[in-house]
Amino acid sequence: MRATTIHGPGDIRVEDVPDAVLAEPTDAVVRVELACVCGSDLWAYRGVSKRKPGQRIGHEFVGEVVDVGSEVTSVRVGDRVIAPFTWSDGTCEYCAAGVQTSCRRGGIWGQTGHDGGQGEAVRVPQADGTLVAVPRDADAKLLPAFLSLSDVMGTGHHAALSAGVVPGSVVAVVGDGAVGLCGVLAASRLGAERVIAMGRHEDRAAVARLFGATDQVSERGEAAVQRVRELTGGLGASAVLECVGTAPSWETALGIVRDGGRIGYVGVPHGPDGLSLKDLFNRNVGVGGGVAPVRQYLPELLADVLAGRLDPSPVFDRTMPLEDVADAYRAMEDRKALKVVVKP
Amino acid sequence: MRATTIHGPGDIRVEDVPDAVLAEPTDAVVRVELACVCGSDLWAYRGVSKRKPGQRIGHEFVGEVVDVGSEVTSVRVGDRVIAPFTWSDGTCEYCAAGVQTSCRRGGIWGQTGHDGGQGEAVRVPQADGTLVAVPRDADAKLLPAFLSLSDVMGTGHHAALSAGVVPGSVVAVVGDGAVGLCGVLAASRLGAERVIAMGRHEDRAAVARLFGATDQVSERGEAAVQRVRELTGGLGASAVLECVGTAPSWETALGIVRDGGRIGYVGVPHGPDGLSLKDLFNRNVGVGGGVAPVRQYLPELLADVLAGRLDPSPVFDRTMPLEDVADAYRAMEDRKALKVVVKP
Repeated sequence: MRATTIHGPGDIRVEDVPDAVLAEPTDAVVRVELACVCGSDLWAYRGVSKRKPGQRIGHEFVGEVVDVGSEVTSVRVGDRVIAPFTWSDGTCEYCAAGVQTSCRRGGIWGQTGHDGGQGEAVRVPQADGTLVAVPRDADAKLLPAFLSLSDVMGTGHHAALSAGVVPGSVVAVVGDGAVGLCGVLAASRLGAERVIAMGRHEDRAAVARLFGATDQVSERGEAAVQRVRELTGGLGASAVLECVGTAPSWETALGIVRDGGRIGYVGVPHGPDGLSLKDLFNRNVGVGGGVAPVRQYLPELLADVLAGRLDPSPVFDRTMPLEDVADAYRAMEDRKALKVVVKP
Repeated sequence: MRATTIHGPGDIRVEDVPDAVLAEPTDAVVRVELACVCGSDLWAYRGVSKRKPGQRIGHEFVGEVVDVGSEVTSVRVGDRVIAPFTWSDGTCEYCAAGVQTSCRRGGIWGQTGHDGGQGEAVRVPQADGTLVAVPRDADAKLLPAFLSLSDVMGTGHHAALSAGVVPGSVVAVVGDGAVGLCGVLAASRLGAERVIAMGRHEDRAAVARLFGATDQVSERGEAAVQRVRELTGGLGASAVLECVGTAPSWETALGIVRDGGRIGYVGVPHGPDGLSLKDLFNRNVGVGGGVAPVRQYLPELLADVLAGRLDPSPVFDRTMPLEDVADAYRAMEDRKALKVVVKP
């Protein structure tokens, strides 16, 4: 089959690889209908996150179950399924607690020895705990919305929950990538009174408004902090969603968070590490989040998508064939595309 | 009047100072009935936290209102009152949000230009927002329990809330000082299923058991982490109360917290600063807490004390006259006393 591999910084290829087949009785094989490129894939593309030459890549996909192992009971051949970006057994203490990303038998697509999402098919370990089937009569037009639930929408939701967003919250979202925009949508969905979207790109700001942003801050650095303070009577935001993961984005998040507020962070930490407790302590600022257990949120978010109450699909602004996936990376790296759907 | 002053490391004195008198119409003057020495006073005593020579010290007291300014309406002369360790106006946005420690008109007893708690009387700014009156018929035997609400019990409660303790939680408390012990009591009061108290002192462990600790870990460092892991089926504690504030105590807290869990911290941060986000991110560990808004918790905790449901007074193991306050510091610094009541 054909699948995406990464050979070094900027070196994305589509190659012939061994077909995805069952290896364990708890596996399923999924034929990928749609995949996409993630902002976190770009860290590998830039060479910041290390990969072995030829390693698979991509961790977001929806598709059709084409084979199941003898122990799989929750999905059948022919089911259309959404895969969260990590697999998990659904039965260990962490899965029971809703932290499927810490599952004792868990892993992430594209890790050494495993298929990535950007390919024709994927061997799915722990299929019962991992895959979420979509009703058979669901409209195929919803496929991009389903795809968003494999990572970015669940990740934005995790940021919002981790920041403590409740009805009436004053929220600010740092980062206008697909996750940040989904954070805007999640905060709005949770009943935030104000959602301040931060970012410089007008096309992304338009999506943010569509997703419920009440204010837009296009300044950066200290000017952005001042602007958010102005918008909030000097207090700052009670809930801040940090959706980037760099030192400047954390500086902004700490600058705009209200005393007693919380920062929910889902940006993969890059750059200098080390959060000052002394600053957090005096201001009673809490910090929560991390790698999002999107499997936990999938049923709830899927129900909203199916009911027409939730549509994150505007985060996708391009679709490219699998064979052109290198162009998808380049377009996203050059900020010419927000998030690209890849179609095998 | 007589009051405690600090002149340098280890140099605690009782001196004649100007009488506490009203300065603003929003002030009250409180004659101190009982005060006490805090673990955080010891940071100043050791010279780690800087103080001006002759600065007042002490931030926990209960007493009788002996004078009120013209604008004070919530307390009257003759009322017995509890003072939280910071004053606050009770009306600003932060007070309304329950973060009185960030009050725009707030401050802390003993700061430059203000009376400390370890003296005969205190001028109380923002009396209406700050003081909590005790019913006039309350038993005087409850005075030490009331005194605990001025800081340590409210601070332990803040740690427990910040760590997300709910009925059924598996809790571990790092630190067996008065705040740590109150953290045990708070976690137990909030319905924790297990409360693992960590500390080496048998007399403190006895108080921890009295306060509801279900397990005791006397090991330190990596051995303590291993022991907590053993006690929790390898998972660690879902809620960790960090009640010390040093680098080793944080290392322990991070070692024993369960993936997806939270660390509630109230130990004033000392030592190397900088929390690794990368570690927290992969494990979805949240961090919250800070300087406790005990004023927020006072009514609720006081109601429990008055009803006989809550008694933190066993954290006090000695009482000394004000003139001997230097001995009280020495006894606590030498670990010969847990927490000393000071009686003017």
